[in-house]
Amino acid sequence: MTEIDFWFSIGSTYSYLTVMRLDEVAAREGITFNWRPFNVREMMIAQDNIPFAKKPAKAAYMWRDIGRRLGKYGLTAQLPAPYPLEDLALANQVALVGMAEGWGKAYVIEAYRRWFQQGQMAGSEPNLSQSIAAVGQDPARVLARAEADDTVEALAEATQDAAAAGLFGVPSFVVAGELFWGDDRLDDAIAWARAGRLA
Amino acid sequence: MTEIDFWFSIGSTYSYLTVMRLDEVAAREGITFNWRPFNVREMMIAQDNIPFAKKPAKAAYMWRDIGRRLGKYGLTAQLPAPYPLEDLALANQVALVGMAEGWGKAYVIEAYRRWFQQGQMAGSEPNLSQSIAAVGQDPARVLARAEADDTVEALAEATQDAAAAGLFGVPSFVVAGELFWGDDRLDDAIAWARAGRLA
Repeated sequence: MTEIDFWFSIGSTYSYLTVMRLDEVAAREGITFNWRPFNVREMMIAQDNIPFAKKPAKAAYMWRDIGRRLGKYGLTAQLPAPYPLEDLALANQVALVGMAEGWGKAYVIEAYRRWFQQGQMAGSEPNLSQSIAAVGQDPARVLARAEADDTVEALAEATQDAAAAGLFGVPSFVVAGELFWGDDRLDDAIAWARAGRLA
Repeated sequence: MTEIDFWFSIGSTYSYLTVMRLDEVAAREGITFNWRPFNVREMMIAQDNIPFAKKPAKAAYMWRDIGRRLGKYGLTAQLPAPYPLEDLALANQVALVGMAEGWGKAYVIEAYRRWFQQGQMAGSEPNLSQSIAAVGQDPARVLARAEADDTVEALAEATQDAAAAGLFGVPSFVVAGELFWGDDRLDDAIAWARAGRLA
């Protein structure tokens, strides 16, 4: 079975729908997802791709659309969640440290849970320290590593890799060079991994 | 069964996926769709919502995504189709005349077929006259009506109605006040029409 790269940034609203169900999907479908955090904000600003700021009709729809789809996936949330994040970069620098140390996915899920279910903005306190502690790590140690130059550089490199893969937003899935954008394309990505075409 | 408003503009690329299958979906699901043309370009410019122009990564993905989904619906197309349209307004003014006279849906399907399957840009010649003739109407008569002040005004009013319904792009579906955006939300709109929630 081909693996699927799951590109995301903590800070993306629609990614809540993916992050909170992806482990269950992976187990049910027998597919491995490689969780790859990067800085989607930096990418989208560079691409002049600003989907919601100063677009009230589209922003209102986004929250309603997410709200309607929660039930489809058995999820809950208090909407709208605080948005946009004040420190998207730091939220994802922590994720990158976690991916290298083996607790990254659990942190991402916890950060989203606190953001969307408890109204704690991801990437800011208390979400940062509480999410790190919740996955068994020391917040002071992790935050120092997350803010170190090599982690900042690693997130920039991940963002360049995402751009090279053709990304322009998240969540995105890349399988065998094919890009699928949006939580609503997860089924397409899985079909492509299986058969090289859509179901 | 609640009816569903299908808001569209000839000129939208993703709307090809909807226009070419909607009659079959309507028959299979037993649902009535009200086809409502308007000027999405005018609306999106006013909202500063420019999805593809000067966004090469997103534009490339759009064509690839449409191409992959064609097979899912049993459709064919020569991609990329000529884009953007040189006269989106006129294409939809003709549609509006056709909706009033009873041949509008057939014209829209024919204009999309020539645009996506034969490379004839919708809203320009020869697509305009050939699509009008193909649905049994006189091109000179119809084009005169389409360019008359009352039709221009009617399209502007339809565009205001679309904005009032919360639209920011097409294809969109509105059922019982709920807005669903995108060909990929047609199933959600149908589920909502049936049960007031997603499947």
